Amino acid sequence: MRRSDLVADTAIALLAERGMRGLTHRAVDEAAGLPPGSTSNLARTRAALLELTLARLTELEAAVLAPALEAETLDRAAAPGLLARALHAQLQDRARTLARYELALEATRRPELRAIYDRAGRRFRDPAVALLAALGSAAPSRHARQLVAFGEGLMFDAIAGAGTTPTLDELGQAVDDLLAGMLR
Amino acid sequence: MRRSDLVADTAIALLAERGMRGLTHRAVDEAAGLPPGSTSNLARTRAALLELTLARLTELEAAVLAPALEAETLDRAAAPGLLARALHAQLQDRARTLARYELALEATRRPELRAIYDRAGRRFRDPAVALLAALGSAAPSRHARQLVAFGEGLMFDAIAGAGTTPTLDELGQAVDDLLAGMLR
Repeated sequence: MRRSDLVADTAIALLAERGMRGLTHRAVDEAAGLPPGSTSNLARTRAALLELTLARLTELEAAVLAPALEAETLDRAAAPGLLARALHAQLQDRARTLARYELALEATRRPELRAIYDRAGRRFRDPAVALLAALGSAAPSRHARQLVAFGEGLMFDAIAGAGTTPTLDELGQAVDDLLAGMLR
Repeated sequence: MRRSDLVADTAIALLAERGMRGLTHRAVDEAAGLPPGSTSNLARTRAALLELTLARLTELEAAVLAPALEAETLDRAAAPGLLARALHAQLQDRARTLARYELALEATRRPELRAIYDRAGRRFRDPAVALLAALGSAAPSRHARQLVAFGEGLMFDAIAGAGTTPTLDELGQAVDDLLAGMLR
């Protein structure tokens, strides 16, 4: 594993476990078992460390979402199952998703982090528009925003909110309900 | 204004502006223009300060949501508009909603904060179940979870995610789409 990946993965784990207050260069060195100063050598500033971490996290999430994004024949009957499996896979890595929420909140205060976050978001927002258009939506852009927001809300509620963790079946029913309403 | 409300309101503003790292007893004293030690006198520990802040935030949100929760005749035609107005009102106070997300993430690491957060959540989750049942849902508990998650996702995406802020009309269309799918 590249040292930058080790540093980023450790930062992700620290963000989930201790929050933004628990993420320091020194804490990453210690938790990763690296000599003092290693994290600073890779990412001098706090901003650089956050950006390195978000870039890695985006890469890890993209790998999880790839099957849903790359499906060639995503028809109306198959869509709920495929999207539910993508959401379910995200829910399995609770720490990574929690770390993403920490970074999303921090991005409201750091324009450069925001730019990375939003660019990453487009990687699954654009395919969502294409999906809705292919399914016959009359308003694919708006419906794609709704679909993405629904997925995000189902995850946030399960991981950080007052909700329970939905099963794969429940996720499929949820996506199916929203698609049915949007494509009515 | 009671001093505890002033402290909590200041903590909410600090959480939104600077994140969990920026919230300290001393920062609250300074930002609220209180003599040093005032916040510590009210809430000795960090946990106590977070709990005081979340309790106040819950109270403020409940006031915003009250019209939607107290509506006596929430029929299928009126529901999207009423729920959209509640979401729209929440979006107007971006700082308060950001602070709630900070507290939601922190609650994943603090069981006592989690208990307050979840108790607050039930105040609008239970009415959501009643609403779905009244509208004829075949699975009111599951559908209420979906509705709450959808609202949360629309807000999170607009405030901290890569999304844009939906208009009142778009919020109404979104809620209408989900209801149509759930009640088909």
